[in-house]
Amino acid sequence: MDICLQHESNPPFAYALEQKAVRLIVKVLRPGSVRQIRVHYGDKYETSYTDVLIMQWAGRGVHFDYFVADVRVPTRRLKYAFEVTAEDEASHWFGEMGWARDLSEAVPFYIPYICPRDVFTVPEWVDQAVAYQIFPERFANGNPCITPEGACDWYDSPTPTSIHGGDLAGIRQRLDYLQDLGINLIYLTPIFRAGSNHKYDTTDYFEIDPQFGTKDDLRGLVADAHDRGIRVVLDAVFNHCGYFFRPFQDAIRHGRQSRYWHWFFIEGDEIDTETVNYETFATKLRYMPKLNLAHPEVERYMLTVAEYWLSECDIDGWRLDVANEIDHVFWRKFRETVKRAKPDALIIGEVWHNSLPWLQGDQFDGVMNYPLRECILDLLVRGRLSTAEFAERVTDWQFAYPAQAQRSMFNLLGSHDTERIRTMAGGMVAPVVQAMALLMTVPGIPMLYYGDEIGMEGGADPLCRGGMMWEDEGRDKDLLAIVKRLIAIRTTEPALAGGLMMVERAEPGLLRYVR
Amino acid sequence: MDICLQHESNPPFAYALEQKAVRLIVKVLRPGSVRQIRVHYGDKYETSYTDVLIMQWAGRGVHFDYFVADVRVPTRRLKYAFEVTAEDEASHWFGEMGWARDLSEAVPFYIPYICPRDVFTVPEWVDQAVAYQIFPERFANGNPCITPEGACDWYDSPTPTSIHGGDLAGIRQRLDYLQDLGINLIYLTPIFRAGSNHKYDTTDYFEIDPQFGTKDDLRGLVADAHDRGIRVVLDAVFNHCGYFFRPFQDAIRHGRQSRYWHWFFIEGDEIDTETVNYETFATKLRYMPKLNLAHPEVERYMLTVAEYWLSECDIDGWRLDVANEIDHVFWRKFRETVKRAKPDALIIGEVWHNSLPWLQGDQFDGVMNYPLRECILDLLVRGRLSTAEFAERVTDWQFAYPAQAQRSMFNLLGSHDTERIRTMAGGMVAPVVQAMALLMTVPGIPMLYYGDEIGMEGGADPLCRGGMMWEDEGRDKDLLAIVKRLIAIRTTEPALAGGLMMVERAEPGLLRYVR
Ligand SMILES: [Ca+2]
Ligand SMILES: [Ca+2]
Repeated sequence: MDICLQHESNPPFAYALEQKAVRLIVKVLRPGSVRQIRVHYGDKYETSYTDVLIMQWAGRGVHFDYFVADVRVPTRRLKYAFEVTAEDEASHWFGEMGWARDLSEAVPFYIPYICPRDVFTVPEWVDQAVAYQIFPERFANGNPCITPEGACDWYDSPTPTSIHGGDLAGIRQRLDYLQDLGINLIYLTPIFRAGSNHKYDTTDYFEIDPQFGTKDDLRGLVADAHDRGIRVVLDAVFNHCGYFFRPFQDAIRHGRQSRYWHWFFIEGDEIDTETVNYETFATKLRYMPKLNLAHPEVERYMLTVAEYWLSECDIDGWRLDVANEIDHVFWRKFRETVKRAKPDALIIGEVWHNSLPWLQGDQFDGVMNYPLRECILDLLVRGRLSTAEFAERVTDWQFAYPAQAQRSMFNLLGSHDTERIRTMAGGMVAPVVQAMALLMTVPGIPMLYYGDEIGMEGGADPLCRGGMMWEDEGRDKDLLAIVKRLIAIRTTEPALAGGLMMVERAEPGLLRYVR
Repeated sequence: MDICLQHESNPPFAYALEQKAVRLIVKVLRPGSVRQIRVHYGDKYETSYTDVLIMQWAGRGVHFDYFVADVRVPTRRLKYAFEVTAEDEASHWFGEMGWARDLSEAVPFYIPYICPRDVFTVPEWVDQAVAYQIFPERFANGNPCITPEGACDWYDSPTPTSIHGGDLAGIRQRLDYLQDLGINLIYLTPIFRAGSNHKYDTTDYFEIDPQFGTKDDLRGLVADAHDRGIRVVLDAVFNHCGYFFRPFQDAIRHGRQSRYWHWFFIEGDEIDTETVNYETFATKLRYMPKLNLAHPEVERYMLTVAEYWLSECDIDGWRLDVANEIDHVFWRKFRETVKRAKPDALIIGEVWHNSLPWLQGDQFDGVMNYPLRECILDLLVRGRLSTAEFAERVTDWQFAYPAQAQRSMFNLLGSHDTERIRTMAGGMVAPVVQAMALLMTVPGIPMLYYGDEIGMEGGADPLCRGGMMWEDEGRDKDLLAIVKRLIAIRTTEPALAGGLMMVERAEPGLLRYVR
């Protein structure tokens, strides 16, 4: 027996798709000599297996092939074992303790009981969603009256501190453009009162930054967006606050006597902003003190923030900044709070690496899909992967998370934290078009970074945060037309909603996959 | 490159051992051509890797070899990648996106931030613990006055309904025996008021079954046990209740009008105990209605139960019946409740199969380790595994869970739910001795089923639940002497506390492993 099979009765190998259905995934090491895999199954408490299903080949990863079966579980309790038919037609039996000589000897795998509260559900609308990320300071200046003094010209090259004057009114005025583009979900980077142009250093979690507008501006933006079938997701920056967040200022002023002292991680008896004797985002970033979300008051405060904007301004969900540096305990409470306030709200974490611990139904719906971006860049821009290698890697990622999470990923070619795709491509349009085509046709929510659809260029932060080009001569209209068409296909073609991606052919210069 | 490496930055491949240390585990498919694996690592926000560590070979599984490195993480933020030296001395680089041409091209793995609330901690005392499972109705009759009428003789062959008269007073009177045996942890199957002899059909979660005694009896038993350095863990039966549980009776009486209607899963408008139109434990077990723990009242009720016995009678933890049919949401709240009431209380789930979803620090400390029992039986009793195959399977299980859980497993050769080990062994003593030697020397908490130490026999339930043999002529004193010696070694030898088990030789008739 030289067949190497991998399966566990846990995600990502086995999980409930809904209250009475389970997906089972088996990995078979290549070179495999497997002709067929059948899953024998039945109720956990039955003495024998009552049903059998042929598993479908579902893709080829770097080392393993994937086989999938979706099993109905009317009693919510499942036991199962696998029958593997080798090339020589011999049957081999595989259970939780490994290979067995026959089915009765195979120790079964179990899905002991599909508990309703554990079933991973994501908003139904994710399957048709196409998202558009806006960096509000740079998308459109709709209200010059609130543009700070000393703002630079709109199209000036951005610096770490430059102010260009974008605001919520500007976004609201450009909803026609976004509707025409075809997107139906806006993700705004932070808009609460903060010190920087990017607003990731919040000083008031309950106020809109006056440079961007007011709560009424947000309400109006959301209402107008909703009228157009466009949802709005905000950025939740809970890992750290800004230097001028009042509790941190209080701790600076009163030292250990401050009632907010334990909201932060401070060494010693008073804050020293020179040596930065407190934890921050990244390393000694003095203007971004890390928050102690395990403190009951801080936890309650941030859960209140989460609920406040959902109910006050009818937003449609949250993107979670630095989500992987905040504990799972908090995120579970966060999900409860958010889904209670708005059951079909979307929760997207910023996690750049393997996100399985957050994607099991109790925390996020999806994450910013940077690994997919890596694969796309390696294929189309860096030339590090062949189409076959790309297909293998993407297939492995496809089976790294439950299907629900795959439907809810924010697939992206770039963001405010990366070089723009056009720049990565050395200014060439062809790789961008190919990348857009991939983005719009693989599982998950395509997310465009503002301006990428018109070929805007920009290197790493701050250059990727330029003022949105609204002048005709600066816009790649051919690219825009292609992107619009791709978005239209994505949002209307049922085959592109949910489901798996299966690569049929991957040859030099050719990649064919079915949805 | 024909090396197949497996690693993820998630359990069981990577997890925090404590607040500033992480364990990393790499699996290498055999036949591997790997000479050495080194992990390059550093703070997540540093531009380069600052440290390097050679990984230790740590065992051979069925298909994969294991390599382990424990890494200090002073800043709590880790990035890392692997350098694999092949047999030909060539270096290969492995990151989250797979193989890369050099270290700078390898996309790092991340442990983004070790959050204190997410670190898996188990009671320190588990490392010296040896447990003893008692089925109270059958261990000792210390108070004949409360023995029900119609009880059979103590040594009669048990039937599904026979009453033998065991009670809490009996256990208390036999503490000398248990202390002399050397165990330091008692696990009692259920003792709350219930209808059956096994008491898994609770009718009052706040009362001791009168056949077993009173709360004062339990308090006395626990206090006397504590005086001897013995802890006491009770059985929590929350998945279902007994038929005569008052809320269920109320639902029978008042149908949909009952305020307890939604405590259960009932089809239709009234309960039909003939057709059993309600969910039960297993299949249509009418006397064990399944509880709806997702209902806020039921949830609160059972959390109160959990807290009550910890504070009222000073018990030392809970063993959780049918733990895998109750949702994770409940178990997380349960852990919070229990550890708040008694931080070093132990939580052991009854899960017979792969338990990783419950063993990540937020739910159980350990589980009843039935897979280990399967391996031991297959090796020593069923003759299905060679020592080499046994070693491979046990090694795979060893790396299936975080180290903390491994320390807290209830390792067992049998329980009230299985045939006794002596009976499995066809009455022979040699396999029992070998099994006991394994039980006492592998990682995890050895758990003896009452009477196994004196060679009691008994087939499947109810035969495995015979009255404890207290007559000299029925006791295998040679076996008892050996078990006592093994327990003494286990509880005093530091090498057997925590740590890994590494098999050095596995040949026909020989298994050598180091701890
Ligand atoms: Ca403005
Ligand atoms: Ca009695």
